[in-house]
Amino acid sequence: MNIKMLIYILGKVLLIEGVLMLLPIGCGWIYGESETVYYLVCALAYVTLGYLLSFKKPKNMTIFIKDGCVATALSWVVLSIGGCIPFILTGEIPSFTDAMFETASGFSTTGASILTNVEAMSHCSLLWRSLTHWIGGMGVLVFLLAVVPMTGGSNMNLMRAESPGPTVGKIVPKVRSTAKMLYLIYLAMTVTEIIILTLCGMPFFDSLCSSFGTAGTGGFGVRNDSFASYAPHIQVIVAVFMIMFGMNFNFYYYFTTKQINKAFKMSEIKVYLAVIAIVTAIICFSVRGLYGSFGEALRHSFFQVATIITTTGFATTDFDLWPSVAKFLLLSLMILGACASSTGGGIKVARFQIMFKSVKREIQSYIHPKTVKKIHVDGKTVDSEIIHSVALYFFIYMIIFATSMFIVSFEGHDLVTVFSSVAATFNNIGPGLSLVGPTQNYSFFSGLSKWVFIFDMLAGRLELMPLIVFLAPTTYKGIIKKPRKVQS
Amino acid sequence: MNIKMLIYILGKVLLIEGVLMLLPIGCGWIYGESETVYYLVCALAYVTLGYLLSFKKPKNMTIFIKDGCVATALSWVVLSIGGCIPFILTGEIPSFTDAMFETASGFSTTGASILTNVEAMSHCSLLWRSLTHWIGGMGVLVFLLAVVPMTGGSNMNLMRAESPGPTVGKIVPKVRSTAKMLYLIYLAMTVTEIIILTLCGMPFFDSLCSSFGTAGTGGFGVRNDSFASYAPHIQVIVAVFMIMFGMNFNFYYYFTTKQINKAFKMSEIKVYLAVIAIVTAIICFSVRGLYGSFGEALRHSFFQVATIITTTGFATTDFDLWPSVAKFLLLSLMILGACASSTGGGIKVARFQIMFKSVKREIQSYIHPKTVKKIHVDGKTVDSEIIHSVALYFFIYMIIFATSMFIVSFEGHDLVTVFSSVAATFNNIGPGLSLVGPTQNYSFFSGLSKWVFIFDMLAGRLELMPLIVFLAPTTYKGIIKKPRKVQS
Repeated sequence: MNIKMLIYILGKVLLIEGVLMLLPIGCGWIYGESETVYYLVCALAYVTLGYLLSFKKPKNMTIFIKDGCVATALSWVVLSIGGCIPFILTGEIPSFTDAMFETASGFSTTGASILTNVEAMSHCSLLWRSLTHWIGGMGVLVFLLAVVPMTGGSNMNLMRAESPGPTVGKIVPKVRSTAKMLYLIYLAMTVTEIIILTLCGMPFFDSLCSSFGTAGTGGFGVRNDSFASYAPHIQVIVAVFMIMFGMNFNFYYYFTTKQINKAFKMSEIKVYLAVIAIVTAIICFSVRGLYGSFGEALRHSFFQVATIITTTGFATTDFDLWPSVAKFLLLSLMILGACASSTGGGIKVARFQIMFKSVKREIQSYIHPKTVKKIHVDGKTVDSEIIHSVALYFFIYMIIFATSMFIVSFEGHDLVTVFSSVAATFNNIGPGLSLVGPTQNYSFFSGLSKWVFIFDMLAGRLELMPLIVFLAPTTYKGIIKKPRKVQS
Repeated sequence: MNIKMLIYILGKVLLIEGVLMLLPIGCGWIYGESETVYYLVCALAYVTLGYLLSFKKPKNMTIFIKDGCVATALSWVVLSIGGCIPFILTGEIPSFTDAMFETASGFSTTGASILTNVEAMSHCSLLWRSLTHWIGGMGVLVFLLAVVPMTGGSNMNLMRAESPGPTVGKIVPKVRSTAKMLYLIYLAMTVTEIIILTLCGMPFFDSLCSSFGTAGTGGFGVRNDSFASYAPHIQVIVAVFMIMFGMNFNFYYYFTTKQINKAFKMSEIKVYLAVIAIVTAIICFSVRGLYGSFGEALRHSFFQVATIITTTGFATTDFDLWPSVAKFLLLSLMILGACASSTGGGIKVARFQIMFKSVKREIQSYIHPKTVKKIHVDGKTVDSEIIHSVALYFFIYMIIFATSMFIVSFEGHDLVTVFSSVAATFNNIGPGLSLVGPTQNYSFFSGLSKWVFIFDMLAGRLELMPLIVFLAPTTYKGIIKKPRKVQS
């Protein structure tokens, strides 16, 4: 294992986190809040420590896939710990477990909260909370790749570990350029949303936080009722932006490089939009009696479908009161998730596509055993190794899901709470059903359950493997031993 | 498609069903019940029709895997329709949907019932109901294979379609001998249970029906309270027999052929028994406060774990009143299921073993990318095609599960009812939780939901693929066309 490189990466991550704290510091300064000082202390500490750790560039910058997983997992753990300390220092979230839950929920773009009164928080803490979504959405290592040059396959191994989706498509030949491009699109879209929301009459602070939450498909809001009290046209705008951030970013890349044909041929985007349209229609039909007008039912259905499929987690209405079929569909969308290479969570549309094509091929192999067909997505052959990995992904997903439910079920809450709390954290959504419904929060869970959720949130965001490799004891075999000498 | 062979097989199946009705006829004759005449009419009709259809042995007896799936699926549909007609004629279950539900539940060894008062049924109908479990447990086509000689791979293709498990191990080189051997072991164990239960003081009729239900891991009982009112020692005996019928039958084969070493080395059996022991312990701990003594809590825990993991579905207590962790574990056992090549349902222990080993290998491939290891189970290499099929199995399973829940959720029952009713039928258990708990039944569902359950029960028993291939339109492409002439 390349430990020097690991330390170097962690140093850079801390450095970035410290620099990013300038935003809440500025905000707190404007609002004249006393909490600002703690952010200043943390920022200084992180920048100093980060600078010291990453001062010396290691000679050997090679990162294998194992190291990539460990580096990614460790970065996110360090990021979460570093991010939660201000909450503890300001006294706004005094317990370490709770602060860690809130921050992991932020960076993993989950949006599940242990806060019972969001509106009592200081502006700088609220902004930091929402900013964690923005950082976590595109990924801190992807940012690192955009700014730090690395050798050959190393950056690819880092990017693969952090980016969502079954395969990592380099949209341009160089990983560094891809990372830069992704962040540019991400930034441009976020700024656009901030401007539109402000122009539409949302207070600037709210539109800043909401846009960070939308962009990272996170879900932390600044009001206790999430989005229920914002004007209908603002709700619709946010819903549209959520859907846009849940789309595969290659779509925007093709768009900006005027390969519009390619953009509109992406089957994942088509499936994603079709699912949104169909599920919105069914839910709207099933809840039509609960609202004053058809338009209102449609707006709430559309917003909730958008917020759940993109795994954002804002809410305009208490969907825990909706009929079973609507609740079942929302639970299914939680597991489906958004597109690969988006900021959304869940299993991802692309993985389902690959599996559906695999199943179709398997049925074909029963009917015409002699014709072995390859699987194609958007004209490209899908490697059998990727199919195998995707299939295993579903299984590992099920096992982590079941294990989490088992531990949480010891608390004795009803099964819908147990199931939906795991589904909502593991898929990085936020609100679930019953006791963790959109009008509730996660404060009542025991410490053990909260740590299970913290694991689930990070595992869900990093798509299982990095965290599993990080925790597997065999990863660290032979680290202490010296490398074998090669006989000459 | 070999249609002549299909007709021949269906004829034989009807013939067997007609002959098997002699048992309820004899029973009804002893009890002097007027319902007997309807069974007599059906038996005569089936034997006649079956004889006519299978009178002429087709010249070409070759069955490809596609035909094997269609033959299996059709056989089970014919079997269910044939089996439900007496219930309609006697007026005990007047609705076709209900009668079909009850019979499919019987043959698929589910044990879910639409009857509100089992004790009001005639003895001949109760016996027929339990006998369907026994027939369905080992499979009617396996029986057919034991008595009808077929060519080469054909019988293998039939056996593969009907037998549970990821691979079909021929325990002796000839399929016909394997089928005979399986039925001999099955019969011997059933007779043993009947004798023991009768000796332990259970009425002979009850022990007959209970043994059929245990052997097929079905779950239909003859009392309204299932097994709650039987003596504790009888409950324990039945629990032990359930576990025995849920074991891989290769174990008994090794045992009878004195390869005891091989029998005790079967890792699936070890995992299966370990899961039973561990889950019983956890559940017993969680429900200890609900019963008068530790012994009683242990007995109920053991019985319920045995009945659920083997997917039988008898009950000695209302486990819907148990705490969340116990209910969650029972739901998990429903999905896990029993051993491959047993009469139990569910996904099967062997499939989970293969997937766990696959996951282990995948993690290894991250840590040591250059070493590609093969997966071994009990010293045998598992073919990568089988691993792929097993992985797909999990996905298809999820999709059918979710689709069923979607349709059933339209009725507006709570999500636990929706989830557990699908879990309990798809995995061939019977009772679920909430509205379909052990003290409830399935009579209140709409016709549509009942047909979903009928599909799920048959799909679960036949392990998905036969029913999917049977329903896939491409299966029937080109059937009407004449075969292409081969140019000489």
